[in-house]
Amino acid sequence: MGKYAFGVDIGGTTVKLGLFDNIGQLLDKWEIPTVTDNGGAAILPDIAKSILGKMKEKDIEKADVAGVGVGAPGAVAEDGMMVGGAVNIGWAAFNLKTALFNLLQMPIMATNDANAAAYGEMWRGGGAGTPNLVAVTLGTGVGGGIIVNGDLLVGAVGGGGEIGHIHVEACEEESCNCGNKGCLEQYGSATGLVRIARRRLAADNRPSILRQGELSAKAVFDAVKEGDALAIEIAEKFGDYLGKGLAIVACVANPEVFVLGGGVSKAGEILISYVEPYFQKYVLPACRNVKFSLAVLGNDAGIYGAAGLILNARR
Amino acid sequence: MGKYAFGVDIGGTTVKLGLFDNIGQLLDKWEIPTVTDNGGAAILPDIAKSILGKMKEKDIEKADVAGVGVGAPGAVAEDGMMVGGAVNIGWAAFNLKTALFNLLQMPIMATNDANAAAYGEMWRGGGAGTPNLVAVTLGTGVGGGIIVNGDLLVGAVGGGGEIGHIHVEACEEESCNCGNKGCLEQYGSATGLVRIARRRLAADNRPSILRQGELSAKAVFDAVKEGDALAIEIAEKFGDYLGKGLAIVACVANPEVFVLGGGVSKAGEILISYVEPYFQKYVLPACRNVKFSLAVLGNDAGIYGAAGLILNARR
Repeated sequence: MGKYAFGVDIGGTTVKLGLFDNIGQLLDKWEIPTVTDNGGAAILPDIAKSILGKMKEKDIEKADVAGVGVGAPGAVAEDGMMVGGAVNIGWAAFNLKTALFNLLQMPIMATNDANAAAYGEMWRGGGAGTPNLVAVTLGTGVGGGIIVNGDLLVGAVGGGGEIGHIHVEACEEESCNCGNKGCLEQYGSATGLVRIARRRLAADNRPSILRQGELSAKAVFDAVKEGDALAIEIAEKFGDYLGKGLAIVACVANPEVFVLGGGVSKAGEILISYVEPYFQKYVLPACRNVKFSLAVLGNDAGIYGAAGLILNARR
Repeated sequence: MGKYAFGVDIGGTTVKLGLFDNIGQLLDKWEIPTVTDNGGAAILPDIAKSILGKMKEKDIEKADVAGVGVGAPGAVAEDGMMVGGAVNIGWAAFNLKTALFNLLQMPIMATNDANAAAYGEMWRGGGAGTPNLVAVTLGTGVGGGIIVNGDLLVGAVGGGGEIGHIHVEACEEESCNCGNKGCLEQYGSATGLVRIARRRLAADNRPSILRQGELSAKAVFDAVKEGDALAIEIAEKFGDYLGKGLAIVACVANPEVFVLGGGVSKAGEILISYVEPYFQKYVLPACRNVKFSLAVLGNDAGIYGAAGLILNARR
């Protein structure tokens, strides 16, 4: 086994890269732009060049590298195939693992970005040492990564853990990005929280701090912290949807821990206080005993997880 | 590895037992009563006695037995612990694997009965050869067993695959057996189908075959086959709930196949024709490509799966 591993997290605007030693310590991290022109054709060559450049800079031989783990913003099957490509960065369907291997000639592990983040949080973050964990990323959407017995639940085509698209509301009129109506993501994300707030503010004429300034997930939880009555009702509604969604996940995957990350989780422990009671309301009693914790690796979760997949791979 | 394995499926009234050869062929099967008196204290001793008796009858030495797999009607954690016991057969919390090992001194694998059935269907049944599969038992309740990469999704305390308690209806007034309201099991089981039918028949005065005779899941699908308009509406409603529930499961576990078993599945392919369109309506497009099939092992799925856990165990 090599002395080093690389972790790569491909985002819509930047690619994050990390160099790790073989016990999982982050030695160096850096970013390169994600060039999405031309169907994202430059992304993998740019990554390969950046990794080879770093190896030269640090005087690292290929034989010393255990491999490169990569997380991408789309479904990635166990064998590296991305049947749906990655819309945000221009990729059509292809095999990510094979393509990166062809450029680097080093062992590659490829997975979905939310799965990589989940693996990172299990390995070195808010769920450290817990083999049955669900990491939930509350950002523009609701992402999920499910770890079962220490392994990622990847599923048939890499769609495992797509918990943002659990159906939670029968009466929705607007469509989710996926085309369906009533997905968890339409309520439980940062965007969803703002939607709930906007609807509530329009339907009610009581005063609220939220009527001034820009409406955001942060603004809602800041107002909650100041005791704003309408903000509290909005947070309750948000907590109801997210708690219900996670209760459903708990019936299916029975995790020990939910690790909450993404922009909304910056609200801190108060987020948990609005989600957990509704989780408890909806969950099957046998699956009730779940800890809620906050993600601790922040934007580094993806590179940690991607490298972790290489370092923990069964050989 | 031994030449034989036993599979045991503990039900509320009978315990089913099977003797398998080491390539998974069923050589013999039989049943003993489940004696639930006195906290179900006799159940495991009865099973041990029956297995030892069979070994004597067939002249099988202990050294020739790879082990005994057992499925029980309750959540069973990876280590054999049943934190919630098994209410239907009188068991309080205990370690099933350890207890049966103490009686037999042979390798034991213990799991939930729905999980055993799922494993059986993956191994020798309607999902044979498919490593990402969800088996759904549509009986009095809705049971589920999830196979990920060939392994059962057991979860933290054995609650993995408890898909009958996915929340699917916000407006339910009656409670599910679990204490919550609006669980999939309240609509998607045989009992649930009868509930839907009863409500529909009470709310509508059109004629229907279902107004005569006893109302059952079988009666509803028989009436559907005869073109009964009300029965068709009832089946649509049932399909909507079950399709929605399975779409949710697909977002979380991304299986290749749903294997439908249990009493309701005796309706045959017509069942799938009422579930699949609603599944397609609610599912995330990335997880859409799922095959629906009918369980083929029937009441033997549990003994097959329990024995399969022994024969396929990584050693």
